[in-house]
Amino acid sequence: MDAPEKFVALTPETLPKRLGDLPALTHRLGGDVSRWQVREVGDGNLNLVFIVESPHGALIVKQALPYVRLVGESWPLPLKRSYFEYHALTRLAASDPGIVPVVHHFDEQQAIIVMDYLTPHVILRRALIEGRALPDLGVVMGRYLARTAFRNSDLCMKTRDKKQAVALFADNVELCDITENLVFSDPYFAAPMNRHTAPQLDGLVAILRADRDLKVSAQQMKHKFSAQSETLCHGDLHTGSIMVTETDIKVIDPEFVFYGPFGFDIGMLLANYWMSFFSQRGHEAGGSREMLRRELLDIIVDTWKTFSATFTALWHSERRGILYQSNLFEAQGDGLASDQALHHVLHGIWVDMLGFAGIEIHRRILGLAHNADFEKIDNPDVRAACEARALKFGRHITVNRDALDDLAVINALAARLDQDVVT
Amino acid sequence: MDAPEKFVALTPETLPKRLGDLPALTHRLGGDVSRWQVREVGDGNLNLVFIVESPHGALIVKQALPYVRLVGESWPLPLKRSYFEYHALTRLAASDPGIVPVVHHFDEQQAIIVMDYLTPHVILRRALIEGRALPDLGVVMGRYLARTAFRNSDLCMKTRDKKQAVALFADNVELCDITENLVFSDPYFAAPMNRHTAPQLDGLVAILRADRDLKVSAQQMKHKFSAQSETLCHGDLHTGSIMVTETDIKVIDPEFVFYGPFGFDIGMLLANYWMSFFSQRGHEAGGSREMLRRELLDIIVDTWKTFSATFTALWHSERRGILYQSNLFEAQGDGLASDQALHHVLHGIWVDMLGFAGIEIHRRILGLAHNADFEKIDNPDVRAACEARALKFGRHITVNRDALDDLAVINALAARLDQDVVT
Repeated sequence: MDAPEKFVALTPETLPKRLGDLPALTHRLGGDVSRWQVREVGDGNLNLVFIVESPHGALIVKQALPYVRLVGESWPLPLKRSYFEYHALTRLAASDPGIVPVVHHFDEQQAIIVMDYLTPHVILRRALIEGRALPDLGVVMGRYLARTAFRNSDLCMKTRDKKQAVALFADNVELCDITENLVFSDPYFAAPMNRHTAPQLDGLVAILRADRDLKVSAQQMKHKFSAQSETLCHGDLHTGSIMVTETDIKVIDPEFVFYGPFGFDIGMLLANYWMSFFSQRGHEAGGSREMLRRELLDIIVDTWKTFSATFTALWHSERRGILYQSNLFEAQGDGLASDQALHHVLHGIWVDMLGFAGIEIHRRILGLAHNADFEKIDNPDVRAACEARALKFGRHITVNRDALDDLAVINALAARLDQDVVT
Repeated sequence: MDAPEKFVALTPETLPKRLGDLPALTHRLGGDVSRWQVREVGDGNLNLVFIVESPHGALIVKQALPYVRLVGESWPLPLKRSYFEYHALTRLAASDPGIVPVVHHFDEQQAIIVMDYLTPHVILRRALIEGRALPDLGVVMGRYLARTAFRNSDLCMKTRDKKQAVALFADNVELCDITENLVFSDPYFAAPMNRHTAPQLDGLVAILRADRDLKVSAQQMKHKFSAQSETLCHGDLHTGSIMVTETDIKVIDPEFVFYGPFGFDIGMLLANYWMSFFSQRGHEAGGSREMLRRELLDIIVDTWKTFSATFTALWHSERRGILYQSNLFEAQGDGLASDQALHHVLHGIWVDMLGFAGIEIHRRILGLAHNADFEKIDNPDVRAACEARALKFGRHITVNRDALDDLAVINALAARLDQDVVT
């Protein structure tokens, strides 16, 4: 069997026959494939996702398709993204055990990953739209972000391993290309795939697309995206890539993985919290969302606080890489030198985080891939008002990222904008 | 012949027999190998270098050894660096035609590169020690630095090609490791392979090794070295990697090639000019070097000025990469937005350049690999005085890189330090 197998997409009908021999599956589902129940549930933009259940258990079978599911076969996308996702899942699991679903099987040729079925988890975005927050979110995600950022960088890894990781993920060209275009550039000119709530936002969109400082800032963040290979980034860490119960939080779908800036993932995630915040005015038919709004701002503060504290603790306990070596600092009796270096690194992450956050907000309102947080607001006037506040906020934090030092100030600004009457 | 050939080092005796069948050589030297004259002339730290001459012509045969020649077999170093050097030579030639020797043959297995013999070229460092400057140096090297920096980056390349280049050169681990240790860290603590002019410099060395701001800055530059993969860097661009005649300038030996910051190569090179400047007081037995000192400072100004002007011209004529796309700026009638972005990019390069320059000066005086500019000053008191001025200058430009905006000011500082009586 030297010839490569031809890729064939799974269906609920063919899946039991095709995967029914694999111990990784039969061990958990039982060998009687006639009792496997298969549903295709992929509602994302790119892949097939099957839930396979039997009386013995349940698993997720995720298969990449050779094109963008959201758009169709006219937009081809290599199956190899499944390979990058697999390697990302492995590394994220090693960096923060328990944070990603356990992988049981990987088939590179058929672009199939078999992993734990998370139940009764729901997508965080859905919970937030429905009005539920999770008190642990900031702590768990802040810790995850710091652990994965620190442990996959030259602060911690052997330099050979880090350079090999950079080379491995540098090949994830097509998915980076999506980010490069859809996130950093398309929103700022009349790109064909853009859409926005019109005509309500037309005026503001024109202002933003003529905003020199904003566009230069967006490109500066793109420059960092493309050339600041500090650590392993999930690459698409929004609230749709997090699954939650009252007591558990899991990160999924790291197929946009790349080596990038320390501040990228955390910036993307905080942006999605801020968007959820600004969207809540459109979801108050069932009652005020004031409490959730406050909780969201608290989650944002907790995320950064925990990120910063965890990164600091790892700096002192696991800094065995080639950067900021202790033999230059602590070993010479100057621990404060190490703190000085740390504070500069954290400051750089902070600034980048704000830059990426603002851009992410813009692309979710002006670009191709919108967030359900806003999309599920039926009244276009209400939706546009929420989106306009978010757009202005995003512009402010990106352009002024060097001058903003305090999340309390930034959140106060969000709260004030949220009460503005948009005209 | 599927089995890999075993690596065997060339000798002047075996070279004609081993390479005498290759058309790349016989075409230039003639097929009668009995008339080939072979001399081993490698005086660098790492490799064998042969000049092969015949009545018909002459070639250079460079072969890597599986260890560091300067240190011996106790320090192994992979032959693959020859592969990276070959690919670097190819890319540098494409970016700035004529700047590197023409390659006629590459044997990956035997780590052999056959290329033009440059004659009557001399190593630039030797010319500077002997008191000769070259008026074109600043213009030619500034242009080379800008062309190679710009054309191998996401400003110009297809992003797929750039990411493939990053992955390719990320494997040059061992040579990057040398830079990571010898340049950025060893000089700042009592590393085993360090040496300096003692006891004259002992006091200053202790001060520098206790200098918190300096050490943090050095590690910040190392952070950029390891994670700012903007463009193809030569990696070891000192005045020993440049060969010159009165009318020609060639760059050689890019085996330390890596993807790194725009400001790296230019910072290393200017550092070597400043070191030449500070060393001249030790070479005045044959007469004053005042004229050369002034020429060196002019070369530094010309290099940056030409770099900046060439980079600017390429920004406007060849910016077809994913960064700072013209459809966001010029295509929307806002050319000034593009200039704004350019000026921020150039400012970042400038700051990095100063940071790298100061560190390079330190490692050449405190680390393992010293420069002949200082080493050839026999009187240790005179040498130490020259070195001390350079060390202080290096500390100043690295630590204050954000606050220094003008080469005239920096050069005036160098000139003032150069007249200090060192105690």
